[in-house]
Amino acid sequence: MYQDRIRRPALLNKVMDAQQAAQLFRSGMSVGMSGFTRAGDAKALPLALVERARREPLSLTLITGASLGNDSDGLMAEAGLLARRLPFQSDAALRRKINAGEVMFIDQHLSETAEQLRSRSLAAVDIAVIEASAILADGSIVPTMSVGNSASFAQQAGQIIIELNLSTPLALEGLHDIYVPGARPGRAPIPLTSPEQRIGVASIAVDPARIAAIVITDSPDSPSTVQPPDAETAAIAGHVIAFLEGEVAAGRMGPQLLPLQAGIGSIANAVLHGLIGSPFHDMTMFSEVLQDSAIELLDSGQLAMASASSITLSAPMHEKFMRDIARYRDKIVLRPQEISNHPEIVRRLGIIALNTALEFDLYGNVNSTHVCGTHMMNGIGGSGDFARNGQLSLFVSKSVAKGGRVSSVVPMVSHVDHTEHDVDVLVSEWGLADLRGLAPRERAPLIIERCAHPDYRPQLRAYFDAACRRGGHTPHVLEQALSWHTRYQADGTMLDA
Amino acid sequence: MYQDRIRRPALLNKVMDAQQAAQLFRSGMSVGMSGFTRAGDAKALPLALVERARREPLSLTLITGASLGNDSDGLMAEAGLLARRLPFQSDAALRRKINAGEVMFIDQHLSETAEQLRSRSLAAVDIAVIEASAILADGSIVPTMSVGNSASFAQQAGQIIIELNLSTPLALEGLHDIYVPGARPGRAPIPLTSPEQRIGVASIAVDPARIAAIVITDSPDSPSTVQPPDAETAAIAGHVIAFLEGEVAAGRMGPQLLPLQAGIGSIANAVLHGLIGSPFHDMTMFSEVLQDSAIELLDSGQLAMASASSITLSAPMHEKFMRDIARYRDKIVLRPQEISNHPEIVRRLGIIALNTALEFDLYGNVNSTHVCGTHMMNGIGGSGDFARNGQLSLFVSKSVAKGGRVSSVVPMVSHVDHTEHDVDVLVSEWGLADLRGLAPRERAPLIIERCAHPDYRPQLRAYFDAACRRGGHTPHVLEQALSWHTRYQADGTMLDA
Repeated sequence: MYQDRIRRPALLNKVMDAQQAAQLFRSGMSVGMSGFTRAGDAKALPLALVERARREPLSLTLITGASLGNDSDGLMAEAGLLARRLPFQSDAALRRKINAGEVMFIDQHLSETAEQLRSRSLAAVDIAVIEASAILADGSIVPTMSVGNSASFAQQAGQIIIELNLSTPLALEGLHDIYVPGARPGRAPIPLTSPEQRIGVASIAVDPARIAAIVITDSPDSPSTVQPPDAETAAIAGHVIAFLEGEVAAGRMGPQLLPLQAGIGSIANAVLHGLIGSPFHDMTMFSEVLQDSAIELLDSGQLAMASASSITLSAPMHEKFMRDIARYRDKIVLRPQEISNHPEIVRRLGIIALNTALEFDLYGNVNSTHVCGTHMMNGIGGSGDFARNGQLSLFVSKSVAKGGRVSSVVPMVSHVDHTEHDVDVLVSEWGLADLRGLAPRERAPLIIERCAHPDYRPQLRAYFDAACRRGGHTPHVLEQALSWHTRYQADGTMLDA
Repeated sequence: MYQDRIRRPALLNKVMDAQQAAQLFRSGMSVGMSGFTRAGDAKALPLALVERARREPLSLTLITGASLGNDSDGLMAEAGLLARRLPFQSDAALRRKINAGEVMFIDQHLSETAEQLRSRSLAAVDIAVIEASAILADGSIVPTMSVGNSASFAQQAGQIIIELNLSTPLALEGLHDIYVPGARPGRAPIPLTSPEQRIGVASIAVDPARIAAIVITDSPDSPSTVQPPDAETAAIAGHVIAFLEGEVAAGRMGPQLLPLQAGIGSIANAVLHGLIGSPFHDMTMFSEVLQDSAIELLDSGQLAMASASSITLSAPMHEKFMRDIARYRDKIVLRPQEISNHPEIVRRLGIIALNTALEFDLYGNVNSTHVCGTHMMNGIGGSGDFARNGQLSLFVSKSVAKGGRVSSVVPMVSHVDHTEHDVDVLVSEWGLADLRGLAPRERAPLIIERCAHPDYRPQLRAYFDAACRRGGHTPHVLEQALSWHTRYQADGTMLDA
């Protein structure tokens, strides 16, 4: 029974199956789809497009909020459907296609895609595909577990396909706060001044005449794949909490801290989990995605509210959230990713940003994306939006990977996503390096002694000593700067023989 | 006759000579001085402190707006006065000390220093030294040719030393617009929505009780050292103007363009100079420094107004400016650098950012600061504030340096100041590469064929081909990625034998 979810009767005749809706697409089109960190993605159209692409050539530019669930990205990539993909992904099959040069991937700061569409730095979206829990009488859409870029897609697309997901509770209405900045020049300040504030409306405005299809679905979001905390992530959490206690003790913030952002992934989730039972209270989150830990902190009473662009939970936590949604709804605001990640807002609120590094170097530059400088993992996501503009930018990583054969602390990162200017604090299971106000030559010894794995410290010390003998503001032995990576590629380990 | 410039009579007894004022400093203090790109710097105290440091040990942290004139930075560095220096410099002697590891230099985005002082990520300023053209009845200060971080220094410092410069015209009053964002949490939006808008007050608020000394000076700012346009900078200007004409033709902006930012230096100055006689009109600037070209464009009538944090002119242009100041004053607003460079404002206004690269790589990453990855030139300055947040980010460079022995286009930059996400357009005298919406593998051929010097194109093509055979989203031959730099260090040229 979907009729009670389509409150504009004239739209009932737009209901069709996904295969029919898939006929609306033409090769070369730019498509904007809902979906952010596996939450609120379109479930039916990706599969229907894959079916079509198996029968006839079909090649699209696909823009989303962030990563999709349900293996959609991989299936679409393998069907040859994706000529161009932005701004983020986390699918193994799509990753292979990207690294083989078969899919052109535009890795973007998640706050920027909507802006670039608006200013026409990117070609306009032709079709939008947006998951909804209801369509209101004015044709506007109540999104589901993410907002992402859907409001901008709906504003721009000539045709809009709505996936009405019957498995989502109607109680989602009221969870979202939709605000889209105006065009430039002449834009007004974004009026948001605190994480809980609502500045927009509860549904995504849509011109009903452009609704080309409504497809009924009922599959749930893919559950989060986050790993449970382990000894190392617990140690990292301990260092972060001790550091934040120091900030409070120094009077740089109160016991409610500043609004917290945490990147997606197991380590950031573990750090937030570690805040349970900490001395902090009345905390807020202003983040892009809420993971299990955010719900746990709401339950513990320490988190007063959480603002984000999506909610990505494990299966049991998802079930609990949906059961108690009336209680959570008042404590959560879901916003467009342009607002959740906006430099203006992140700088104004003074976020504490907590993101994961793939590797970092002696001077505090961070690689979040490229394995050995060349092969894309997922994408930069929102980490830069927060790291660049927050009051405090922390990057966390385990000190080694691949059973100790890869050091996360290297002489020079093989790819730079975050420059040393955007990195205040580095944390591994061994300790924490507070880099604020330090010159490169002061940063290096701190990073080596606090964060590097003890097995790698002698090599790092030797490199830094040799580099200092060569001189420079940021000393390097240039011909050896990337030798750890090439040694790993040749010998399977970064450890000196 | 300085009495008419001190309009709070109780302060007249604070007048003393610079040597006396220099006695207020103690080793270990943090000192905030006015001065931004050689404009509005303190003239007397740096020399008095140098004198004192030659007699007795004295070691300070020095924070300014940006670079100082009058060789002050070099003299202070050579006297051993500077333990720590931020956020920018451009002095040859200080540069040597920094690269020798003798001065700890904290290279910062120019919008961030005031924020970090406010949040106490940096130790508080003990003494502020601010050049003024007048002190008003309420004790507030009318700054001179720059605002820089002076308003934040005055807010924070326990003691304030004013250098009253009698060579500056009293007509400077009314040129400045002083607005300082509030503390976080609880900060309001910065209300600026267009370049000409005034949101603050005309003088820097000062608690008169904290004015510890007033030193009378009369030396002018050091003149700009910018080079006149040459054939190559004229070619670069031509490419930029043709590109902007294309943007107007495509309807992405009107003939007034969007507010322009141009980094300090000869190439950016030449590009702005090239706008004289272009079809654009009613343009505005929202930049950090105004060079000769800004005055020329005001004179040509094409520039309606200009907002910045400082004015740095050649000697003849300075003379002209001072003579006609009444006319220019209505068309120029000088702001704190935190506002001129603020991410919130730069993103809201949709700036066209034009900055100079030292080198850039096949994928669009830019090095603005470090020669061969290690030796600091000047600092990142405001380039990142604008490049990250503007609507369009252009980086310009001549294709070669050192008589052709150094290519500005390299396989991998030896230091990353601006990641590929922040670089929309690259320009050399050979042409312009529009990188918007392109994946790394699409960027490389464009950059090689449009921007690289023809002598280096075969080498670059060979590198890129070999890299693509290895695979990856951002292909590299890691063991050769920095080989151009090491070859230059060994053989004096980046050209293949």
